[in-house]
Amino acid sequence: MSTDGAGAAARADIGVVGLAVMGRNLARNLARHGHVVALHNRTRARVGELVERYGDEGEFVAAEDAASFVAALKRPRRVVVMVKAGTGTDAAIEELLPHLEEGDIVVDGGNAHFEDTRRRERDLRERGLHFVGTGVSGGEEGALLGPSIMPGGSRESYDALGPILESIAVDVDGTPCCTYVGPDGAGHFVKMVHNGIEYADMQLIGEAYDLLRQGLGMEPSDLAKVFAEWNEGDLESFLIETTATVLAKVDAATGSPLVDVVVDQAEQKGTGRWTVQTALELGVPVTGIAEAVFARSLSGAADQRRAVRDAGSLPGPSGSLSPQEAEGFVDDVRSALYASKVVAYAQGFDMIAAGSEHYGWGIDKGAMATIWRGGCIIRARFLDRIREAYDRDPHLASLLLDDYFAGAVADAQDAWRRVVVAAVRLGVPAPGFSSALAYYDALRRDRLPAALLQGLRDFFGAHTYARVDREGIYHVLWSEDGSEVRQDAEAGSHNPH
Amino acid sequence: MSTDGAGAAARADIGVVGLAVMGRNLARNLARHGHVVALHNRTRARVGELVERYGDEGEFVAAEDAASFVAALKRPRRVVVMVKAGTGTDAAIEELLPHLEEGDIVVDGGNAHFEDTRRRERDLRERGLHFVGTGVSGGEEGALLGPSIMPGGSRESYDALGPILESIAVDVDGTPCCTYVGPDGAGHFVKMVHNGIEYADMQLIGEAYDLLRQGLGMEPSDLAKVFAEWNEGDLESFLIETTATVLAKVDAATGSPLVDVVVDQAEQKGTGRWTVQTALELGVPVTGIAEAVFARSLSGAADQRRAVRDAGSLPGPSGSLSPQEAEGFVDDVRSALYASKVVAYAQGFDMIAAGSEHYGWGIDKGAMATIWRGGCIIRARFLDRIREAYDRDPHLASLLLDDYFAGAVADAQDAWRRVVVAAVRLGVPAPGFSSALAYYDALRRDRLPAALLQGLRDFFGAHTYARVDREGIYHVLWSEDGSEVRQDAEAGSHNPH
Repeated sequence: MSTDGAGAAARADIGVVGLAVMGRNLARNLARHGHVVALHNRTRARVGELVERYGDEGEFVAAEDAASFVAALKRPRRVVVMVKAGTGTDAAIEELLPHLEEGDIVVDGGNAHFEDTRRRERDLRERGLHFVGTGVSGGEEGALLGPSIMPGGSRESYDALGPILESIAVDVDGTPCCTYVGPDGAGHFVKMVHNGIEYADMQLIGEAYDLLRQGLGMEPSDLAKVFAEWNEGDLESFLIETTATVLAKVDAATGSPLVDVVVDQAEQKGTGRWTVQTALELGVPVTGIAEAVFARSLSGAADQRRAVRDAGSLPGPSGSLSPQEAEGFVDDVRSALYASKVVAYAQGFDMIAAGSEHYGWGIDKGAMATIWRGGCIIRARFLDRIREAYDRDPHLASLLLDDYFAGAVADAQDAWRRVVVAAVRLGVPAPGFSSALAYYDALRRDRLPAALLQGLRDFFGAHTYARVDREGIYHVLWSEDGSEVRQDAEAGSHNPH
Repeated sequence: MSTDGAGAAARADIGVVGLAVMGRNLARNLARHGHVVALHNRTRARVGELVERYGDEGEFVAAEDAASFVAALKRPRRVVVMVKAGTGTDAAIEELLPHLEEGDIVVDGGNAHFEDTRRRERDLRERGLHFVGTGVSGGEEGALLGPSIMPGGSRESYDALGPILESIAVDVDGTPCCTYVGPDGAGHFVKMVHNGIEYADMQLIGEAYDLLRQGLGMEPSDLAKVFAEWNEGDLESFLIETTATVLAKVDAATGSPLVDVVVDQAEQKGTGRWTVQTALELGVPVTGIAEAVFARSLSGAADQRRAVRDAGSLPGPSGSLSPQEAEGFVDDVRSALYASKVVAYAQGFDMIAAGSEHYGWGIDKGAMATIWRGGCIIRARFLDRIREAYDRDPHLASLLLDDYFAGAVADAQDAWRRVVVAAVRLGVPAPGFSSALAYYDALRRDRLPAALLQGLRDFFGAHTYARVDREGIYHVLWSEDGSEVRQDAEAGSHNPH
């Protein structure tokens, strides 16, 4: 059903600007849930197409232009912008602005960088408008059938917008996968970290597959069964299930496993990179995500990899797994995957905590685990465990300290170590597994070699150091008599090198 | 010797603005090499102090203010700004600008971000001035006795400035550690990568120390001897030598090794972080630098580490090295350190190549190895090997492909693998060693599990994939009949998730 927007009374509950596949599916999802949806698109034909094809799914108002689009909306107006992130978003906002009034709400459902969202929120707030940057996860299908939604912005805007978004989000055990995240950029920040975790998760799955294939000589069809079986246990998740599906897929043209005809260069759209760049800024070690992003970069360095192949000069071990090592290796890899995944999520949630603290967002970490349980790419049984951990202690210093996760990692760690050892001996790269293990071993260490680094830095840059046994900042007069002098707080900062 | 700048004829060869320790030492170094040096400082007293204390080292012109400072300089004027990076630099430039004339050269010798240098160079170029962002490495001592200097900017500016800088740079085998790097931000970019490599190098040294101490129960004084011995061979470098010095240092107050009384929280000033952030932007895997930066962050997470200690819930292995493993372990660690270092430098030089390509700088990688041989923190015999490698093939696709390095890593790799295995079994974190090994193993792999990732991405995001056997971009209709369809180039880009 559709009505013409021009001159119509303000009767639409919400509007969608930008009707490419994500916007179209979100509009349909909204209409299917009984909301009257106003539609606007730069190319007007798309509006007509949507109404013609899907008009029977609910109530649409096809707007002629931005003015009539806005006029068709009930106050406070709720406008969801679903356009290409970047200048597209700014252009869409510019077009709407002259028609909006105080208290109206503009929602950006694209993959914006959270700093851009902070800027836009500030700009619109100064004009009396609400700007809601929201993560929408689940791709085309999620947008239509129920995404995970991570809205940031003012509390007030969520009062007006939240019920509608919650109605279209996917539902897990009676709880919608949508909740208020926090002010300004909080929603897009959390979505970014979600994507970063997704990178780490996929990298770990790739390593598990590679190790089993190289170590045991298993074929993709057999590995599909292994992943399907894993999907019955603790690892149950959309990505493990999908891995089973992809590994089982046979290429029709060649009769080979699909995974063997696909070029092994992983692409990326940038949110993994943003996550690591931001984590560096916040000083949070997200080694799992960094290794995953860099592994994709390396896979994509086609010229360099070709040169290496052509040179044939980088030897590796020729060994294979001993029968004892092969025995139980599948289970070992499952344990290593689980433990490494716990580390990746622990790092991701540390980053959410740090971002929340830095920007004053007050993000509820358990609630983030809750809304990731459905709709999004990293949806998994596992997220219930994270939610429970934060229910037990909202101020948990690391997920690894929760009893359940500490126990799970303790149970897994012998296997985890065996798998990393096997990877090293086989010459199979497992940067995700080994970096997660190194992080675990560093986190639990009483003393780290960082003390030596501080000594070196004091030697060559007079950067000073603190002592374990008393207050103060100290420096050794290395090139004089080697005595120690106490320095004021600023003494070490004058000499960058 | 000193003359008053006010009213004096333009007789200074070069001027220095900002006379904190780095600027003061650089000014003295210039004067000692026979250049007449004009001096200017916001706090005028510093100018007088410098002349009073060091006036006999050469010829200084003490300027009253910015106008007389500039007036004291021969044309084209050469002004070196040595102030706190950031707004300090902009303020210093602003103060000079009204007095400078076309063709004059402003040099920023601070640790600026290369993007800021690009901006400043553009701004000054529009006013007919040259702006030279230059890396100056070697700390206070280097500034006085001979730093490594990495100047970027116009070729023309280097003609006027280069001879002076080369005269004060440290000299190695008759070659000054200063050369023209490339346009605009090239000098500061190369300095940034230098610092990133320094992070990786120090992390690897820290791991070697930690492994030997935990694995063999060696005391710092014994380890000092090991490092001193290593400094006689392939590892010969300022950092290895300094490690021996620091490990040998006994704390006078307690009689303990200094390294045991220093708080084990490594600090950072930001250039390591910049390196990784930029590498992510350029798509170059610098895993060694990333692990080093994150290891420092983790060491500095005092609250989290305290919580972990208090909880006592993260178990580790209790094993120690077997007698066979202990036998030869020192040599194995040396080999692992060398091989990991080769990887870290290979990644750093890949980053220089990528930056040079991206920004059109035309950086000569062999020349960078040459000017890092002295003055700077990473100075090492090793850099001669890198220079030779680029002499043999300036277009080397990876340092690891050079015959010398390929051979060195091949020789080292059994030991390298044994050390990573030992670290994993001992529970000693060695993220630098293991991540370097994983990089090596990934680089030499014919097929990477990235193909599986592409399959997953096609499944959940319709991101498409390429095939190994024919041209084109493909997508499987996963939720329909599972057939493969060829897509145009843009098909995969509409659906970020």
